[in-house]
Amino acid sequence: MRKIRQLDLPPGVLQPREAVLTMAAYAPPTGSRADKLRLDFNENTVGASPKVIEALREQLTAAGLSIYPEYSAAKQELGVFFGVDADDFILTNGTDEAIQVLINTYVDDGDEVLVLQPSYAMYRFYAELAGAKVREIPYRMQKLAFPLEELLEAIKPSTRAVLIANPNNPTGTGTSRAGIERILEKAENAAVLIDEAYYEFCGVTALGLLQDYPNLFVSRTFSKVYGMAAMRFGCLFSQNGNIDFLHKAQSPYSVNTVATIAARAAIQDKTYIEKYVTEVLAARELLYVGLEKLGIPYYDSKANFVLFQAGKRAIPLRDELRKRGVLVRDRSHEIPGCIRVTVGTRDQMRRFLAELGEIWI
Amino acid sequence: MRKIRQLDLPPGVLQPREAVLTMAAYAPPTGSRADKLRLDFNENTVGASPKVIEALREQLTAAGLSIYPEYSAAKQELGVFFGVDADDFILTNGTDEAIQVLINTYVDDGDEVLVLQPSYAMYRFYAELAGAKVREIPYRMQKLAFPLEELLEAIKPSTRAVLIANPNNPTGTGTSRAGIERILEKAENAAVLIDEAYYEFCGVTALGLLQDYPNLFVSRTFSKVYGMAAMRFGCLFSQNGNIDFLHKAQSPYSVNTVATIAARAAIQDKTYIEKYVTEVLAARELLYVGLEKLGIPYYDSKANFVLFQAGKRAIPLRDELRKRGVLVRDRSHEIPGCIRVTVGTRDQMRRFLAELGEIWI
Repeated sequence: MRKIRQLDLPPGVLQPREAVLTMAAYAPPTGSRADKLRLDFNENTVGASPKVIEALREQLTAAGLSIYPEYSAAKQELGVFFGVDADDFILTNGTDEAIQVLINTYVDDGDEVLVLQPSYAMYRFYAELAGAKVREIPYRMQKLAFPLEELLEAIKPSTRAVLIANPNNPTGTGTSRAGIERILEKAENAAVLIDEAYYEFCGVTALGLLQDYPNLFVSRTFSKVYGMAAMRFGCLFSQNGNIDFLHKAQSPYSVNTVATIAARAAIQDKTYIEKYVTEVLAARELLYVGLEKLGIPYYDSKANFVLFQAGKRAIPLRDELRKRGVLVRDRSHEIPGCIRVTVGTRDQMRRFLAELGEIWI
Repeated sequence: MRKIRQLDLPPGVLQPREAVLTMAAYAPPTGSRADKLRLDFNENTVGASPKVIEALREQLTAAGLSIYPEYSAAKQELGVFFGVDADDFILTNGTDEAIQVLINTYVDDGDEVLVLQPSYAMYRFYAELAGAKVREIPYRMQKLAFPLEELLEAIKPSTRAVLIANPNNPTGTGTSRAGIERILEKAENAAVLIDEAYYEFCGVTALGLLQDYPNLFVSRTFSKVYGMAAMRFGCLFSQNGNIDFLHKAQSPYSVNTVATIAARAAIQDKTYIEKYVTEVLAARELLYVGLEKLGIPYYDSKANFVLFQAGKRAIPLRDELRKRGVLVRDRSHEIPGCIRVTVGTRDQMRRFLAELGEIWI
């Protein structure tokens, strides 16, 4: 039986686990975004492929909604799309569930988990929820470079998980396939997650290493370039011997049917995604030039977002942009003075730069 | 650091947590059900309200799909519908996530959790995944009555959670509001979950006790009478001091936007649900009479399913029904000789009884 620590809880509140008491709350500012220019969550700023909506309109029926999800057709088609066997991945309720299932499968109370800092908040969130000891490896401040040597040095035989976004959010930087291989070789007792949420903008993937490393886990999401954040859909890849255990630790119906219909339609429209990526890469160049003209320092990014230096003006700038209907994300608590702006289309970047210019001068 | 037990894993498979190794896999038979008479998962056998499909057709847009879920409007409307404050519940990705969040909030590795046996498999699943010691209280075989005295006796000061479906699945029996109060009074250190997945068919609810017991948690789902199992949507209610902690242990986007649109439409169509419940209750009587005519013993049920005694013929009977396009669920591993059949409409029950009659004679 565990020790119960007496706590200053209000009368009548049931005492939660210590891990829950001590972890930080994570409450992203998601309210009232629909009518604004949303450059704050790295979503696809245009929307999902029209083919996705068509498929939903055709396939959603009142009778069909009453049936518990079935995944076999979606898994077959996604396997072909990603070039892997249907037994080499699970479907997940967004990348968040991929992280949670991975941690629930491999990380026990008190185990050591390595994450980079700053990075996506949910790695620490789920690791802390599992009672893990989380160790953070700081990003290099010089060009926000991926701290490969520092990470390799931190990996011990007792490390049970290494959770990496590549490219990373919010830094926009990442490591190479060779860098990933060095991590996989050092962390042989650990589950190594390479979260490729922004893969399509950068082109580096660890998927091809899957059969060489039994400690490799790769996640992909349909919430970013695919424009399906509302649906919650992702995939977690590994060798099939590991997949059996991930399955055991996963709820049998966590992914909704509507998301599977949408994902199956989305992968039929590669052209839509390619065009959007091309547009975003052009818009990122336009954004760089615009920031340079304004004399605002920024960091080169491999993803659909850019960090720029607003210094002490970061928070007032974010607030003033919001008043003008443009949403960006303050990251100054992680990287002093930095604002993160999602890269959308060139037209959207022109609007953003125009508003920014008026405020900045 | 934890002890690593040497295991007979195939070479190259990463060793999972001991809790994952030892827990049973849960793989419900969900494939190829769409074209059959589905009396195996206690779904609404007709479908969601047409108003749900209308709302989806109107509100789903390619641009909207790209936005991360926002829950405030849905919470306001559902609060009014359930007669509680918007701060007294969380939205969940089906009841499964409600169970998982509750356990992650209150149950530590090694803590004791009580469940009834037989009951919904996911209580044990998530408790074992959290490393809890699960103690099962057997249902009384006499009329499959709720084992209230046995459960009360099993509750200790060290019990950290008591997970109950009321009415229970697959027994179809439950306890009264007074019975629930006795459990809540005895289990004052434990999170007591009353899972009301089948509430609408029975009318007993613990929701009115919420403000009297800080250890009470009530879950509701839209997967059963509402005909929305494909969408994954539920609610978990408690006092708001507890809700704050549940929120801390929950992924910020686990519920998809499509489900929130559907749920908001579903609660606008109370008549549809009332009519469906009336039909199911009439169909249950018709089923009882039909089983009696065939001389097949059954258990009275408070829900939209009935257990009947097929003895040694249980599994061949299920298989033969499947060949004829009728799906039922074998529960003989839990209650010897028992098959569970979902109650749909009277027409569906007539078809089921006709097929059963042909096989049985």
